[in-house]
Amino acid sequence: MQEELFAFIDQYMPLTAEERHALVQLDIFHSFPKGTVLVRAGERSQRSYFVLKGCLRSYRVVDGEERTVELCTENEGLTPPWAADKATDELYVMCLEDVILVVANEGMEQEMFERFPRFQTLCRIVSEKQLVENKQAFADFKDRTPEERYVHLQENRPDLIQRVPQQHLASYLGITPESLSRIRKRIARPANGVS
Amino acid sequence: MQEELFAFIDQYMPLTAEERHALVQLDIFHSFPKGTVLVRAGERSQRSYFVLKGCLRSYRVVDGEERTVELCTENEGLTPPWAADKATDELYVMCLEDVILVVANEGMEQEMFERFPRFQTLCRIVSEKQLVENKQAFADFKDRTPEERYVHLQENRPDLIQRVPQQHLASYLGITPESLSRIRKRIARPANGVS
Repeated sequence: MQEELFAFIDQYMPLTAEERHALVQLDIFHSFPKGTVLVRAGERSQRSYFVLKGCLRSYRVVDGEERTVELCTENEGLTPPWAADKATDELYVMCLEDVILVVANEGMEQEMFERFPRFQTLCRIVSEKQLVENKQAFADFKDRTPEERYVHLQENRPDLIQRVPQQHLASYLGITPESLSRIRKRIARPANGVS
Repeated sequence: MQEELFAFIDQYMPLTAEERHALVQLDIFHSFPKGTVLVRAGERSQRSYFVLKGCLRSYRVVDGEERTVELCTENEGLTPPWAADKATDELYVMCLEDVILVVANEGMEQEMFERFPRFQTLCRIVSEKQLVENKQAFADFKDRTPEERYVHLQENRPDLIQRVPQQHLASYLGITPESLSRIRKRIARPANGVS
């Protein structure tokens, strides 16, 4: 799976042979079966995750109910809240599918930054890009009705509609499973690629 | 105002005299009167803003109505969407008050990164922190009713309730001005510091 990681990084900066070798030497490639809970609320694991294959779900438990915060699939990373000062320690992270991940910790990052300062540039650019995308998604969420949110997801991420169980998709869209079911019936238009 | 900028940066990394001098040499400190529109939708200004004094508002126009996206006050920065690949060019940025800003462009950033690589570390850490905070604010928004959102703002950012006109505050909270007015009446509890 290392080629997938290299291809992702190469979009931002083509890696040298030495940099590729250093990445492979780190113990960062890990597989986990579907259902594995990688992080539990209250932990301060200090690990960050980048998905090479599969789907991760982060969620909170509010009033006894799981509320999906993020869904991360191929070439997406999960920035842990414990990386910020105001760590809330309230997130769980679990594998919705069998996954292959890049798992890094702060020590590995520091080592790479010291040996190859360009990795710092890479991480800065990727997090600035994610910040802008996240702000835009937040603004879109405020401006859209629940039905518009579902239609937007259907048009832009039809894979999530196929891969993610209904109840998780509902809280991800900020609605109840019953509302999601009504919206789907009202639209009565199958997602791309489904007969 | 340069001391305010130094104090902000010093939280992350104490600046050397040489670094301070280099920052002051850049033409980055600017004042603008209330009402100034700094960015218009469709522009690709490539500038980024950090507020030393005053309040900036970014907004979109949806169906002819202004919808507030962000409110930035002292020690907060505005990450422009045009910094990301998927630039949407749909944001306006205006000064809600007389402001003193740090205005930087990509050329200035590159110059500082080359002369002082530590600035790259600073920018990485600040944007990672902002990313986590933004994701958390987004998750909170999904989990809260409009009234809970208002109460949370009242408790955590009473200054915004004082400084920002009602109609802008309403769209920032994802509700209509009429709903905000009803919520305020229902709560009938003045914000901190208001008699």
